Amino acid sequence: MTIPNAPREHHNHWVLTFVCADRPGIVHAISGAIVSARGNITESQQFSSADTGRFFMRLQVESPGDRAEFEAAIGPVTSTYEMAWRLDVVGRPLRTLVLASTAAHCVNDLLFRQRAGQLSVDIPLVLSNHGSLRDLASFYGVPFESLPVTDAASKAAFEKRILDAVDEFDIELVVLARYMQILSPELCERLAGRAINIHHSFLPGFKGANPYRQAHARGVKLIGATAHFVTSDLDEGPIIEQNVVRVDHSRSASELVAIGQDEESRTLTQAVKWFAEDRVLLDGARTIIFK
Amino acid sequence: MTIPNAPREHHNHWVLTFVCADRPGIVHAISGAIVSARGNITESQQFSSADTGRFFMRLQVESPGDRAEFEAAIGPVTSTYEMAWRLDVVGRPLRTLVLASTAAHCVNDLLFRQRAGQLSVDIPLVLSNHGSLRDLASFYGVPFESLPVTDAASKAAFEKRILDAVDEFDIELVVLARYMQILSPELCERLAGRAINIHHSFLPGFKGANPYRQAHARGVKLIGATAHFVTSDLDEGPIIEQNVVRVDHSRSASELVAIGQDEESRTLTQAVKWFAEDRVLLDGARTIIFK
Amino acid sequence: MTIPNAPREHHNHWVLTFVCADRPGIVHAISGAIVSARGNITESQQFSSADTGRFFMRLQVESPGDRAEFEAAIGPVTSTYEMAWRLDVVGRPLRTLVLASTAAHCVNDLLFRQRAGQLSVDIPLVLSNHGSLRDLASFYGVPFESLPVTDAASKAAFEKRILDAVDEFDIELVVLARYMQILSPELCERLAGRAINIHHSFLPGFKGANPYRQAHARGVKLIGATAHFVTSDLDEGPIIEQNVVRVDHSRSASELVAIGQDEESRTLTQAVKWFAEDRVLLDGARTIIFK
Amino acid sequence: MTIPNAPREHHNHWVLTFVCADRPGIVHAISGAIVSARGNITESQQFSSADTGRFFMRLQVESPGDRAEFEAAIGPVTSTYEMAWRLDVVGRPLRTLVLASTAAHCVNDLLFRQRAGQLSVDIPLVLSNHGSLRDLASFYGVPFESLPVTDAASKAAFEKRILDAVDEFDIELVVLARYMQILSPELCERLAGRAINIHHSFLPGFKGANPYRQAHARGVKLIGATAHFVTSDLDEGPIIEQNVVRVDHSRSASELVAIGQDEESRTLTQAVKWFAEDRVLLDGARTIIFK
Repeated sequence: MTIPNAPREHHNHWVLTFVCADRPGIVHAISGAIVSARGNITESQQFSSADTGRFFMRLQVESPGDRAEFEAAIGPVTSTYEMAWRLDVVGRPLRTLVLASTAAHCVNDLLFRQRAGQLSVDIPLVLSNHGSLRDLASFYGVPFESLPVTDAASKAAFEKRILDAVDEFDIELVVLARYMQILSPELCERLAGRAINIHHSFLPGFKGANPYRQAHARGVKLIGATAHFVTSDLDEGPIIEQNVVRVDHSRSASELVAIGQDEESRTLTQAVKWFAEDRVLLDGARTIIFK
Repeated sequence: MTIPNAPREHHNHWVLTFVCADRPGIVHAISGAIVSARGNITESQQFSSADTGRFFMRLQVESPGDRAEFEAAIGPVTSTYEMAWRLDVVGRPLRTLVLASTAAHCVNDLLFRQRAGQLSVDIPLVLSNHGSLRDLASFYGVPFESLPVTDAASKAAFEKRILDAVDEFDIELVVLARYMQILSPELCERLAGRAINIHHSFLPGFKGANPYRQAHARGVKLIGATAHFVTSDLDEGPIIEQNVVRVDHSRSASELVAIGQDEESRTLTQAVKWFAEDRVLLDGARTIIFK
Repeated sequence: MTIPNAPREHHNHWVLTFVCADRPGIVHAISGAIVSARGNITESQQFSSADTGRFFMRLQVESPGDRAEFEAAIGPVTSTYEMAWRLDVVGRPLRTLVLASTAAHCVNDLLFRQRAGQLSVDIPLVLSNHGSLRDLASFYGVPFESLPVTDAASKAAFEKRILDAVDEFDIELVVLARYMQILSPELCERLAGRAINIHHSFLPGFKGANPYRQAHARGVKLIGATAHFVTSDLDEGPIIEQNVVRVDHSRSASELVAIGQDEESRTLTQAVKWFAEDRVLLDGARTIIFK
Repeated sequence: MTIPNAPREHHNHWVLTFVCADRPGIVHAISGAIVSARGNITESQQFSSADTGRFFMRLQVESPGDRAEFEAAIGPVTSTYEMAWRLDVVGRPLRTLVLASTAAHCVNDLLFRQRAGQLSVDIPLVLSNHGSLRDLASFYGVPFESLPVTDAASKAAFEKRILDAVDEFDIELVVLARYMQILSPELCERLAGRAINIHHSFLPGFKGANPYRQAHARGVKLIGATAHFVTSDLDEGPIIEQNVVRVDHSRSASELVAIGQDEESRTLTQAVKWFAEDRVLLDGARTIIFK
């Protein structure tokens, strides 16, 4: 995955994220490197994980130099502290593949906000196992493909198309916007840390089919949604964002579905926005969110 | 359980709740009875359950007559429609037994709001398996007893004391305010529909010991609390109220506990308040809440 | 304004709302009329206003008869109690005129939810003083007209077009979806009780230009939106719905605008939904919302 | 105001806050000083204000040295960058004077949480212009004094007692916990930046007497509370925290008062907690909150 150079303007605006073992002097070392790159820190967040002993940092830096100068300046520090790091340009649209089935709410919210300039993603393709969202994608000027998934062979073909699209468009994020097929463990592995899914959430949780019907039967007072990274352990990946909304006894199961969809849309869009802004870092099974 | 007559003021303010099979004419019949009792409806809520085919209603009625007149007026209707009904005086404090262990937050919130006039309960006793909340109860002028629970015999003695207190004080509601012992199935049965418990809630849920630690390990973004009726199926009784609050990665497991306790307090107090105001009706495994 | 008969199905589903002076017997009288119309009450809400002495009720009723039968049955009651009443068919789409300027967020939310079946309105026209939302309306298959407003004459022409459209399409609700022109007092008067506006809301409030900049300067921690009926007293009409969202010191004034727009969209759509479902009644300067 | 040395444990845990003009190199300079003091940064937050050109930072640092060593290490940096800075020990209880009148809710919440270990303040005195909260203070073991305020002379005496108490107890924070007297401009000046008040908040705002009655008359759907620094411009000081809660048409003005009080309690306690943890910095008329 290559990231293009920032445009050589008077000042570039960089976002630098890194993770390393926690020990004294990290902030001093990296801030020294930034000084030497003629950079000015405009935003900074850090976190020391007591659970894993790792140190996480996200910096936004304005500097007059180009990527080569910046990388040269921080290179000795990233080596010394054995950092896993990532340098990008603030606001660069993230190349994002959207997977969908028939539900429109999440796809519509992503595309509307992308066009409204509120979500810094570039979506070269919406890929669905149904054709029903073609018009929606077309309205927003986004290419759309559909491939039916009806058996093991067609499912394998769909997954191959996902991987081909990831290569073809140099995809950095795959969003499962109510894509209703389970990804194979191999695909989950290939997309680890760069695929986000959304699912409904209830207090208490419900296993099995038709959870909204179960939630209705149990008279829950809150329903919500969870956006998380895709892992092969279904719906158990690291959590990125959660929301709930209050409901009461008068809501039918189908009304709960509609209410839940609103939560799904806004929760997924929020998770994608944070990811696109390099605000989501992984700490084992947890996420660090630098809002 | 007997309910005293309302004071014979110029106008009494009654609360009438009933449940019956849903069929046409119920509202007309009961409102006719109220007219004949010279009553004026000041608040009215109803719900038809599509799940169970039952009809639920809560009415507040001002009338110049006494209980005998009111009961005589509604008697033919409650018989004809085979209603399970309850008539009480608006604002009459509910006789409430509070069970506690060592945690103060729920007990403090109940006692403070009771004294502040925001919670219409009369608490003749706080019964605990520890002595540490004695001073708190004393400050609020509420009798306090402690009985250790350390084995099967002392647990049986504690449960016997609960039942004796229910009789002695003509208790209408038992509140488990972080009482950390599991009630026996027999006691759950005896207190069915008049005992409320509180427990923490997470998205997703966690089984087993130390759920706050599990929630921390999993990086949940919301933690909350659920107040529900006590049943022998642990933590699975009909839900009365739920709340959640947002947390982030920087919270330690012990901070999650403190945050969760706030949700527990306000959720339990809200559930007790609604119950004391006859706003909680049971529809199978669900509650109807007439807020 | 005429309301078409319900289709003569096996059972019609009616929504009846009425307001009258509060006195004993109203519920009994109206429920008797419903029994005589062979109706079954499926939803009922009422409110007695201590402020104005008026009684408000909303009923949903299933009955096998047609509108004539239903009106004949309730006629004596509505006369006796001097009710202002309205009878409609549950779920009938409300004929709604949308006014817009250049901002897309509110219009997009209304059109998306209308098409998704979550908002029971029929929008025969989006009328704007700019052309920029033409494509959006077109995508949703909604007619669009733009008329520039640049001076008193063009403003009068725009308002005349509003009134003509109201007549031409038998409009029942006018929604100002970020229409950025002040309506004339005469037009406000003509549309009284059937025009809804949305505006941003802050704690504390700010007068004058660029309120988001003022809110930023003052460091507010919550920003929100209020949907209200249009009156000639600018932004002071009866409130239908309000929402807020939390912000912090790091938000720029332009970020506050984006956040505020989300609140505006969801607040306006919610208000329109309740109005379309006959859930909004006026009690002087206040609204009664039968959710 | 003097701040005691931290206990000479193996490691001290410091909180350092500072403000200075924003320019490159600040973070590098201060982190270098911390390295030289053998310190490890455990928490760090910063903010560059585009409005005032100032740079704000809050650091938590573990180090084996004492205050003298730490101050010596950072001294050159604080001088060079002309920082306004403050060094304290994490978790040291802030010496806090509570002012009250008759309302118990805010005082109770502060005292309960202080005792529960959730609020790091030390309250040597509750000072009231009424005697009614004496028992509450007594229960929590907090000294209580009351002095009537009935005219200019007694008001001056009360304010003199405030200032004497501030000196006597070396007070660092004055909390107006529903103290219903307006402080004189001179006193506001003396307490600038270390006195916090709470008041109700509405959308829209209401001027004049009995705002809850006005809010009821206007049918507001949200009511809330704002905690802010005391300034001589009444209720217009920099905002620290705000909360709102949803209400509906059925709430009487007195119910709105009770609901508003809950928001007041939790909002004031939250503001005090953040202040006590050195998380509140002033940026002109705004606050920077490092949560």
